[in-house]
Amino acid sequence: MKIELKENEEINDLEYKGLKMIQNKEGFCFGMDSILLSDFAKEIKDESYVIDLGAGTGILDVLLCGKTNLKKIIGVEIQEDVANLAKRNIQLNHLEDRFEMICSNIKDIIIKNYVKKNSFDVVVTNPPYKKDKTGIQNKNYTKLIARHEIEANLEDFIQISYQILKDKGTLYMIHRPERLVDILILLRNYKIEPKEIRFVQPKAEKDPNLVLVKGIKNAKSFIKVQKPLIVYQNDGNYTEEILKIYHKEEKKK
Amino acid sequence: MKIELKENEEINDLEYKGLKMIQNKEGFCFGMDSILLSDFAKEIKDESYVIDLGAGTGILDVLLCGKTNLKKIIGVEIQEDVANLAKRNIQLNHLEDRFEMICSNIKDIIIKNYVKKNSFDVVVTNPPYKKDKTGIQNKNYTKLIARHEIEANLEDFIQISYQILKDKGTLYMIHRPERLVDILILLRNYKIEPKEIRFVQPKAEKDPNLVLVKGIKNAKSFIKVQKPLIVYQNDGNYTEEILKIYHKEEKKK
Repeated sequence: MKIELKENEEINDLEYKGLKMIQNKEGFCFGMDSILLSDFAKEIKDESYVIDLGAGTGILDVLLCGKTNLKKIIGVEIQEDVANLAKRNIQLNHLEDRFEMICSNIKDIIIKNYVKKNSFDVVVTNPPYKKDKTGIQNKNYTKLIARHEIEANLEDFIQISYQILKDKGTLYMIHRPERLVDILILLRNYKIEPKEIRFVQPKAEKDPNLVLVKGIKNAKSFIKVQKPLIVYQNDGNYTEEILKIYHKEEKKK
Repeated sequence: MKIELKENEEINDLEYKGLKMIQNKEGFCFGMDSILLSDFAKEIKDESYVIDLGAGTGILDVLLCGKTNLKKIIGVEIQEDVANLAKRNIQLNHLEDRFEMICSNIKDIIIKNYVKKNSFDVVVTNPPYKKDKTGIQNKNYTKLIARHEIEANLEDFIQISYQILKDKGTLYMIHRPERLVDILILLRNYKIEPKEIRFVQPKAEKDPNLVLVKGIKNAKSFIKVQKPLIVYQNDGNYTEEILKIYHKEEKKK
């Protein structure tokens, strides 16, 4: 099958189980966030019904399909051109039977009957990190929506997650440590009890710049804080754990 | 001056600026918690008016007096025999002009006119870690009150802190990571915005077992998560940072 490439698009090899991604060189490229979140969520059971809120070009979902034998994952992306790119990534990786894209604002997915309440086992999400009207706002609108809370804010992501998760369903999220208080308070307010958090540090000597959070709907309160995930060794090479996540230990040896 | 020692009591040298502590061998001995909290709070300004809620035998306050030129610190301890021991620790370290003990339930300090509302620059506290009726409860009542939320719970500690802190006053707390969600939610509810947290790990490869939290009354929301404090190296020796906290680098060399 011939996959159409648009202007500024190129195919990147993920160097993992033969998976590939079309990326727009001018758009929002996937980062380590998706790779770390796909690993944090890798315990998802095969039969789980999974949804990715704010799926972008589908990188997280492609990686989850690669890491697990997941039968069904749905990606929701508001931007039509980005959702279209995700659909071509589905074709490129022959995931048509397992991965489906919906183009919608996450706030509308129930009203518009795309999905049902209390129907998902798992929500995964890498929401926009920055509050609207804070920090440097990107002039590129595609990047702006992906990075700032323009169309939906953290509370929307968590409220919708609560509505679509089954009882005892799981939410996996990656976000910035400076939003930790907001995240934990909103999760508890919407009855998705935070059960596990793990900070990600660029190096052992650097403060964390990402946080992975796992919450369970209607669970009892008790959080497990894991030791941090360190990305680089002091010499600039990846740590053993990151190499394991990338499944590159063998290549190194 | 002769300091009276009661049954089971002994004087321990803190090996730090000549400070000493009377400890009851059968009672609640101070641990690393107090040492870490005194270091986390070491930026307190000399002229600050400071209170320690749940002061125990006064170890945190004795250490803070050693680390800073603090003019006034007040310790509050509910147990009379423990507060009495703290008073003898004040004498032992000649801190009568700087450190004062009040024997009271922390919940009663305003009603009983021991302290005034909105009067303190800083609260330091190492509250009981365990919820009432959870875990193994100690048969020794002194230890039980120090470790379990029998006489005052986390919400009481935070509520009282809010009441006695000045506007923009600072709270320093050490607690267990599994209570993180409760801590952050209660702090924000009582308008002491969490501004900094730091986890403490026994080793780099172990999950954190303590968390240091700094909050500021009526501050804007933005939390800084610091890299963890690691206590032991893999070979079992203290890390450089812990040696620095103990001021023992010189002795090592």
